[in-house]
Amino acid sequence: MTDPADPNAPPDQSESPGRTNRITPRTPAENAQLALLLEVAGTPKPGNVDREHEYSDLRFEHFLAGTIGAREGLAMAAAGEPVGEAFERAARGMATQRGGNTHFGALLLLTPLVQAAAAEDLTPGGTAAVVASTTVADASDFYRTFEHVDVAVAEPPDGWGDLDVRRGEAAIPALHERDLTLQDVMESSAERDGVAREWVARFERSFRLADRLATLKGPIGDRTSRAYLEALAAEPDTFVAINHNAETAREVTDRAAAVLSGEVDPGGVEQFADELIEREINPGTTADITAGGLFVALERGLEI
Amino acid sequence: MTDPADPNAPPDQSESPGRTNRITPRTPAENAQLALLLEVAGTPKPGNVDREHEYSDLRFEHFLAGTIGAREGLAMAAAGEPVGEAFERAARGMATQRGGNTHFGALLLLTPLVQAAAAEDLTPGGTAAVVASTTVADASDFYRTFEHVDVAVAEPPDGWGDLDVRRGEAAIPALHERDLTLQDVMESSAERDGVAREWVARFERSFRLADRLATLKGPIGDRTSRAYLEALAAEPDTFVAINHNAETAREVTDRAAAVLSGEVDPGGVEQFADELIEREINPGTTADITAGGLFVALERGLEI
Repeated sequence: MTDPADPNAPPDQSESPGRTNRITPRTPAENAQLALLLEVAGTPKPGNVDREHEYSDLRFEHFLAGTIGAREGLAMAAAGEPVGEAFERAARGMATQRGGNTHFGALLLLTPLVQAAAAEDLTPGGTAAVVASTTVADASDFYRTFEHVDVAVAEPPDGWGDLDVRRGEAAIPALHERDLTLQDVMESSAERDGVAREWVARFERSFRLADRLATLKGPIGDRTSRAYLEALAAEPDTFVAINHNAETAREVTDRAAAVLSGEVDPGGVEQFADELIEREINPGTTADITAGGLFVALERGLEI
Repeated sequence: MTDPADPNAPPDQSESPGRTNRITPRTPAENAQLALLLEVAGTPKPGNVDREHEYSDLRFEHFLAGTIGAREGLAMAAAGEPVGEAFERAARGMATQRGGNTHFGALLLLTPLVQAAAAEDLTPGGTAAVVASTTVADASDFYRTFEHVDVAVAEPPDGWGDLDVRRGEAAIPALHERDLTLQDVMESSAERDGVAREWVARFERSFRLADRLATLKGPIGDRTSRAYLEALAAEPDTFVAINHNAETAREVTDRAAAVLSGEVDPGGVEQFADELIEREINPGTTADITAGGLFVALERGLEI
């Protein structure tokens, strides 16, 4: 307890902790890359590629190359370049490997987070300010990204047929006509896509995951695995819902909760991981949010 | 067979293949980082940290953070900054994690290789030119690095007591007095240190390993493991000789050769890996050369 009137008390950080707690030896772009590497290294992360699990056509090394390829775009975000342009560059660089889409969702989270960190306001409010500052040009660059990367996406909402992201550049005139910013685009997808939901909900799951990483004990790979499982148990993964269906997403969430509650034996998490890989069920959104949380934790001084 | 007089024949590249075969989507600094990541991911690499093996105080994540930390120094090398200064910066950044020395030797190989690649002459001759261009200032920066990183090194050769690298900055006046460049320093250590030997032998083992990576088939992690084992079987590891003794280094080389020849059963390589970790025998120089070879292969267009 400190006396609120004590002139020697540390300044009240509750208003904007992001402004004062940047205590990392790395730049924001470097922490973003390290977050991507720690995410893929954390094992087990049932259904996702990690140190001990991979798919025959989507392997660990594709994630390493994807992380290196994303560097320039992440550095653009840190330098205050427009979010859409930085994201497009990061995703295009990420795709310079043979595995295909390794980090689309993670980069879509990291680009605004890096920009908020570089502005020394890595807080829910700071990310909301970045999101609110996006323009129609940012939305256009986001659509342009789909020319370079093959990504599984949800069906567009009613009335958005002309703005289906799978149309890529062809949809850009409609963005201009309807004067839609990247924030507007994310709002339209928030119901079906957990990454878009982070954009419009002040990145609350990423910040919560960062808090968990700071609280948990042990090597970072174990903490990453645990925080991922908790996030998976808390909310059905929208990438699973898109690629399979809502029932499968719910089943995976229930299984994650059962593993955490100890209803299954200690080896249960390994069996769960093997089974999801076998069924090609990949909770990619939860992995993306894990990368977002790792980035926030690293910016706040998590030591490796 | 092409007619040597055929005007449509491709130009003769035998003189300087490095000048014409830079066909990678990544910058030299990015390829250097990716080489470090692919090196640590390749498994098994008996005695070294990899995807499936680590020491309790030197873990996989330390190598990820070390790679990210090395970025700025590697970019300096690519920009043509002095080799000594670039290396010192890379090694200091590498050390911003809790595992200690993860990449000292690998960065000492990569710094001149990156500089040669950026000059579009990644050939034995191109690396020799970089080495020959080093100055007393480069040697001083090399000695300064020992202020930041705790590295196991060989005893200095006779007459070099005042130039023991463990003296760090204190040895710099002696470098000036004796007018010694970084090339001179490497020549003095070449007999006992396999990384220094690469410097004075035109990086021949790194180039040979790159050739093997291009010839071998299968996922890059398996090729890396195989190329590492072949390099280990070809020459006793000087890092093992320094930390243990020459007999142990010879024993490890003989064991690697036996594993390759099939004298031991197919599971023998895993048993070999487990045993070296158990005995804390770490063929670090062979891992460094593996990273050098991966870099050359990536620059030449090895696809991931």
